[in-house]
Amino acid sequence: MSNQKIYKPKPISGFPEWLPEYRAVELQWMDKIRKVFESYGYCSIETPSVEEIDVLLAKSGETEKEIYTLARLQADEEDKQKSGSGFNVKKEPRLAFHYDLTVPLARYVAQNFNDLVFPFKRYQIQRVWRGERPQKGRFREFTQCDIDVVNIDKLPLHFDAELPAVIFEAYQSLGIPSVELHISNRKIIVGYLQELGIKDIPFVTRELDKLDKLGSDKILKILSESFGGDTLLAEKCLDIVRINSFDNSFVERIRALGVTNEMLEQGLDELKFVFDSLQYLPKDAVIANLGIIRGLDYYTGTVVETRFQGKSMSIGGGGRYDNLAGSFINQKLPGIGVSIGLTRLFAMLLDDGYIRPCAKTPSQILVVLPEEARRAEASVTAQMLRNRGFNVELFHSGVKLKRQLAYAEKKGIPYVWFPPFSDGQPHEVKNMMSGEQTRADPDRWTIN
Amino acid sequence: MSNQKIYKPKPISGFPEWLPEYRAVELQWMDKIRKVFESYGYCSIETPSVEEIDVLLAKSGETEKEIYTLARLQADEEDKQKSGSGFNVKKEPRLAFHYDLTVPLARYVAQNFNDLVFPFKRYQIQRVWRGERPQKGRFREFTQCDIDVVNIDKLPLHFDAELPAVIFEAYQSLGIPSVELHISNRKIIVGYLQELGIKDIPFVTRELDKLDKLGSDKILKILSESFGGDTLLAEKCLDIVRINSFDNSFVERIRALGVTNEMLEQGLDELKFVFDSLQYLPKDAVIANLGIIRGLDYYTGTVVETRFQGKSMSIGGGGRYDNLAGSFINQKLPGIGVSIGLTRLFAMLLDDGYIRPCAKTPSQILVVLPEEARRAEASVTAQMLRNRGFNVELFHSGVKLKRQLAYAEKKGIPYVWFPPFSDGQPHEVKNMMSGEQTRADPDRWTIN
Repeated sequence: MSNQKIYKPKPISGFPEWLPEYRAVELQWMDKIRKVFESYGYCSIETPSVEEIDVLLAKSGETEKEIYTLARLQADEEDKQKSGSGFNVKKEPRLAFHYDLTVPLARYVAQNFNDLVFPFKRYQIQRVWRGERPQKGRFREFTQCDIDVVNIDKLPLHFDAELPAVIFEAYQSLGIPSVELHISNRKIIVGYLQELGIKDIPFVTRELDKLDKLGSDKILKILSESFGGDTLLAEKCLDIVRINSFDNSFVERIRALGVTNEMLEQGLDELKFVFDSLQYLPKDAVIANLGIIRGLDYYTGTVVETRFQGKSMSIGGGGRYDNLAGSFINQKLPGIGVSIGLTRLFAMLLDDGYIRPCAKTPSQILVVLPEEARRAEASVTAQMLRNRGFNVELFHSGVKLKRQLAYAEKKGIPYVWFPPFSDGQPHEVKNMMSGEQTRADPDRWTIN
Repeated sequence: MSNQKIYKPKPISGFPEWLPEYRAVELQWMDKIRKVFESYGYCSIETPSVEEIDVLLAKSGETEKEIYTLARLQADEEDKQKSGSGFNVKKEPRLAFHYDLTVPLARYVAQNFNDLVFPFKRYQIQRVWRGERPQKGRFREFTQCDIDVVNIDKLPLHFDAELPAVIFEAYQSLGIPSVELHISNRKIIVGYLQELGIKDIPFVTRELDKLDKLGSDKILKILSESFGGDTLLAEKCLDIVRINSFDNSFVERIRALGVTNEMLEQGLDELKFVFDSLQYLPKDAVIANLGIIRGLDYYTGTVVETRFQGKSMSIGGGGRYDNLAGSFINQKLPGIGVSIGLTRLFAMLLDDGYIRPCAKTPSQILVVLPEEARRAEASVTAQMLRNRGFNVELFHSGVKLKRQLAYAEKKGIPYVWFPPFSDGQPHEVKNMMSGEQTRADPDRWTIN
């Protein structure tokens, strides 16, 4: 045994990792999501994990407290004295880890503007970091799967319908409970509130966004108070966010509120286009839901939220922004993006016991090593099967057959291959599920 | 145009990113590497990007200066006063970014010891971080592709031959210039130096490791001086590291040095086993090279280095370690691991102009939108082709055909699909390379 001092490591709150049999499921999910993204022509990019702090803060100062910064453990003393940060500030900007994939995309598009073809359609499956306080279900490192389209000057409405469809298909490909696409358009609610004469629209929308969490009574009270006791006005604000429908009756119901203006009409036209374009999706998959608000300060048109059918919790979403990269380049670059919070979704379904583990190995076949003297022959058999596309392990030593079979059993390897144990014997293969063992030709055998 | 203040971001030295047409190549590489790893039964794991600092430093204090630590930009004032680190030290250990994938594996194996099946064969394709000073070719964030096998108590020599073969196959699958596997066994050189009566073996091996960089004369001088002027002894040290051969003549040449002991013999037996086991690989792919040293303080048996044929620079490597996780668990867990430095390799071949870009999009087909009124029909065509496994974009607006074709051209989409422009017209497809345009059935058309 070792003489070293033992340091027993503990799991780090907010930084999840999985056992191999669950990681295999996560990897399958990532493959499936990527396949759907690519099937619509979205290209992959990856950006560094860090950005200049000034880039991360260009959009909003609000996220500041969530950012993790980078420092060297042993910065030169000189640097330390000059910066206090432990990072070499003499030549370099300070760096911090990205907290989403949207700001890095904005920076990437601005920086590579002349090398990209627009509309630029990209997907990005990458880890992000948030400086959250440790808390159950709060991840400080997690993987996001984002698609965005960015164009110069004007972005066709086509994409407002395409992105929700792509995301819906991506969820569907995972074989998880059915999801619903909740769709709205921020121009409708902003136009409506403007027409009602509301002054502080960001405040009102922020409160309306809490409807599911706090309930109508509470929101009504908060709004009434802010309107100097005008309960009727507060009721009117609530009226619009209560509208949702699986069919196009949302149009009539908005009309029935008797409030309109140019912005509302434009939003309604856009929402109708998106809603109609998605009618080919399964019945009950698409809901026009005026209660979807999602960070209204940021989005300027279509907003999308995905939920499990009949549940109120968001499992992803996104929307349209007018000017993605305006902080970094003197170009108007409108975009639309939707995101799957992969780690959160996976962890949630894992906790629920919904996710069934894969085998502990990708191996499909374990080739038995009859004895050390037959290693070369067994190795050739393994390589033949590998060349035919199978995932194959050759057992690592010529121990008793029972131990070799136990290894296959424990790792969940579905087939065990027996190369000849003596000259002239045939190959055999055992199906570990059925127990059936049959003669087989390594040149022709297939899984059936 | 925007009224925002423009902040023009600059590329961050040491944190590479690629344009979509090169990222697509990198992604293909990662798929191919993963496929080879899985074909030998290695399972995927991912670990968090961070570890407790105490975990990262458990193995060696030497790496300390290379570590990036994590801090929150706006840590609570209280925390700051208590720790000076900006991180909440009251309840939590300090965290830092992993600088390799071996220490995280050690921690993972120790922590999940009871849930893993041994020998545990895992691959890990992940980013690592090193606090390097900015310098050309020095990456501060890069992707490594590692395979390791870890077992309890004793690890069969089988794996010393398997891992180099897997790595060789992985390189081969990338379609890059041929690589050579340089293989040695540290027991040979250590046994040899012991038998020569060398006291400070780590010092001598460290100097011998610089042979390629400094040349024989310089190394000879350094060693002679350290041996109190014994040039003959210094020559003898150099004799062994000069031995290398594509055939098994290395055995005779080691014997001819006339120095032996138990450790040297054991190392030689192991090297012969590995060398013989790899003889099925292409001629000139495997070299027994006693000059391969690779951090001898760390490795305890087989050591491997990959190089481009005829070049002296290392493009990856690894070896066997006696006790991987001994700092974290009271279990002897010997292992062997080999690594591909993906980012470094990719950047090197990119710089050399060796890597040819892919198309700027994964789309295989652009479906033309004849006019807004035919959107639903064109959309159905795109979806039909997508369902048949093609990557398909529907053009986003019904503009002039010329503009739609120009988009396909610029993005490198190889086929343009024309759905009916009027009722009763057939579908047609244009091969953008040949210019040929033919009738086609979306239900049956294939790329030929």
